[in-house]
Amino acid sequence: MFELLKTDTTSLARLGRLTTTHGVVETPVFMPVGTQASVKALDPRELDECGTQIILGNTYHLHIRPGMDTIKQAGGLHRFMNWTKPILTDSGGFQVFSLAKIRKIKAHGVEFRSHLDGSLLFLGPKESMEIQRVLGSDIAMVFDDCPPHTATAREVRAAVERTIRWAGECREQPSADGQLVFGIVQGGAHAALREECAKAITALKFDGYAIGGVSVGEPEPEMMSAVEYAVPHLPEDQPRYAMGLGTPAQLVELVARGVDMFDCVLPTRVARNGTAFTRRGAVSAKGGMFKADFRPIEEGCECFACQRFTRAYLRHLLNVNEILGLRMVSVHNSFFFAKVMSDMRAHLQAGTFGEFRREFIATYVPTSRVLAQRKGAKPVDETRGEE
Amino acid sequence: MFELLKTDTTSLARLGRLTTTHGVVETPVFMPVGTQASVKALDPRELDECGTQIILGNTYHLHIRPGMDTIKQAGGLHRFMNWTKPILTDSGGFQVFSLAKIRKIKAHGVEFRSHLDGSLLFLGPKESMEIQRVLGSDIAMVFDDCPPHTATAREVRAAVERTIRWAGECREQPSADGQLVFGIVQGGAHAALREECAKAITALKFDGYAIGGVSVGEPEPEMMSAVEYAVPHLPEDQPRYAMGLGTPAQLVELVARGVDMFDCVLPTRVARNGTAFTRRGAVSAKGGMFKADFRPIEEGCECFACQRFTRAYLRHLLNVNEILGLRMVSVHNSFFFAKVMSDMRAHLQAGTFGEFRREFIATYVPTSRVLAQRKGAKPVDETRGEE
Repeated sequence: MFELLKTDTTSLARLGRLTTTHGVVETPVFMPVGTQASVKALDPRELDECGTQIILGNTYHLHIRPGMDTIKQAGGLHRFMNWTKPILTDSGGFQVFSLAKIRKIKAHGVEFRSHLDGSLLFLGPKESMEIQRVLGSDIAMVFDDCPPHTATAREVRAAVERTIRWAGECREQPSADGQLVFGIVQGGAHAALREECAKAITALKFDGYAIGGVSVGEPEPEMMSAVEYAVPHLPEDQPRYAMGLGTPAQLVELVARGVDMFDCVLPTRVARNGTAFTRRGAVSAKGGMFKADFRPIEEGCECFACQRFTRAYLRHLLNVNEILGLRMVSVHNSFFFAKVMSDMRAHLQAGTFGEFRREFIATYVPTSRVLAQRKGAKPVDETRGEE
Repeated sequence: MFELLKTDTTSLARLGRLTTTHGVVETPVFMPVGTQASVKALDPRELDECGTQIILGNTYHLHIRPGMDTIKQAGGLHRFMNWTKPILTDSGGFQVFSLAKIRKIKAHGVEFRSHLDGSLLFLGPKESMEIQRVLGSDIAMVFDDCPPHTATAREVRAAVERTIRWAGECREQPSADGQLVFGIVQGGAHAALREECAKAITALKFDGYAIGGVSVGEPEPEMMSAVEYAVPHLPEDQPRYAMGLGTPAQLVELVARGVDMFDCVLPTRVARNGTAFTRRGAVSAKGGMFKADFRPIEEGCECFACQRFTRAYLRHLLNVNEILGLRMVSVHNSFFFAKVMSDMRAHLQAGTFGEFRREFIATYVPTSRVLAQRKGAKPVDETRGEE
């Protein structure tokens, strides 16, 4: 199911291959987020042209709209949205704990009110696995308790215990034909809790392991620590997935720490505000400096947008609120994230990942926000959550 | 420049071919509206796949943003927006009289305040032709005075006189290399004024003639009359263009009245509200009846959207405000309008236009709004204006 093809000599980075029902995923991989059965602003052909191998869908949102009756009749999420490559679905845990109005946490799940219409719903290990079975995702995630960054040690411990118990309950549920199931490690920024959780979750023998409870509002150093605490306790021969991350530089640094899979709303979310990613960092494509700049967003970039449109034109579209503007920046950013990952795979294959990492980090200038976050400031809410 | 290939025996319909700098346009033709250098929600590849032969750009809007400095530096509108096929630009007259705050109508143009920031601007025959020269459109329109439907006979007469005088001033202006210039006939719903205006404008020897002052709020019968009053006074061997029209059934009826070219915001504008066109009429793709309908918007339709997505999926996307929803309905509607035109051309070629017209009108159920408009009600503001 997962083949570890090569490991880096200068870091914990790994080259791998994950085989799923709907195809092979080369790792390290970035998964664009398609919360409501659509990666925002993009169509499947564009996603394909961006080099997308696998996308993410959201149990919580799809459960609410269009609802499982429609998905069942459509023959699953792939057919509903006409995406033929692999899909990973999250469990809804993150949304229940971050988005919904919780009414009561019970032994076997959470009673909550829909963020949409206030209707009373219940989601737990059994319900989440059942929904993901109907969605027919290639990879289902266990239903976990994901506390915020501000949780006390005592609250994080309770979340870890609940996450472990619920993971066991998820394990007992049937999954769709060929569906892989990944466990999730919680534990905040506490080394002992991360270790304890990782050991208990891996004992349940899942098909892969995610590091959850990151991208929940913590400063970057804490996020890195959380990953570093968990990774040594995860099996070498199975895929590792850091949930909800991250910026391009973070992706490179997390691959170097042994992570294989990522998902994040960042490339498409900031695109809708006109922010484009380049090798030198993120730039606002709305800025006056692009007014008469007839180069592509990034010279040499082979994405659909850079092959066709200039900065001056995209700036105009963004400033007059034309949908094509945010569409094309979404295309560029999605291509960019996929390209950073495929470059890492090529360098891992060639044994030059260390050089790539050094040069990438030296060239990529983080935004002032990210720099502040490195020094301990709380991040702004750009990478978190669902689209 | 314009070849009249065939005329219908049952109506005034004509099959033609218009040769422009950026390529040949087969008529009758529908031109999607790209007000701000973008046909809303669509990219050039999609426009191409929809069978688009020529698009429309707006002098007034492009003059304000991005401004002629940027367009000049880009090397014209085609290069700025990366559209390689023909472009027709309107003169800005319609916008000045409908959108801007007019300060003073002067002998050689109009002093007005920008609808955007209130800045004082001046547009007249000289300025409009100069802007269209910079835009480098294949077809430039003369700067006219387009009165609203509510104008008195006296006001319409003044507009006709001004339109004739300004057309003469436009004729004296230089145009871009190979740029065709079309005159515009005003005259409201008055037969005598339409005839007078048509005779004066055609005497100026333009490359084609538009019927303006339609789609300005009048009931459908008045619109049809306005066209019927003008057409007999326009030369047989030159293209005729009805500005700002119309619904699919109107396009068929106007072709039957001898019109060759059309532009309208309808297909893309209503798409953004979830309305899709079919041979049986317009339908709301948001409706509950599509909830578990896994057919395409229109069975047998070869557009990108119908080849890939179901009504149930598009309904979901529209209801959760996913951009892909309005994108795909925009694709379908643009394809639909182009297909109605290419069907008309095929039937004109085959000598079966009369049967096509009869069957199309019998099958196509107009919306209750359009039916009310036929009986004399004022139309809603869906087809008018710019995108």
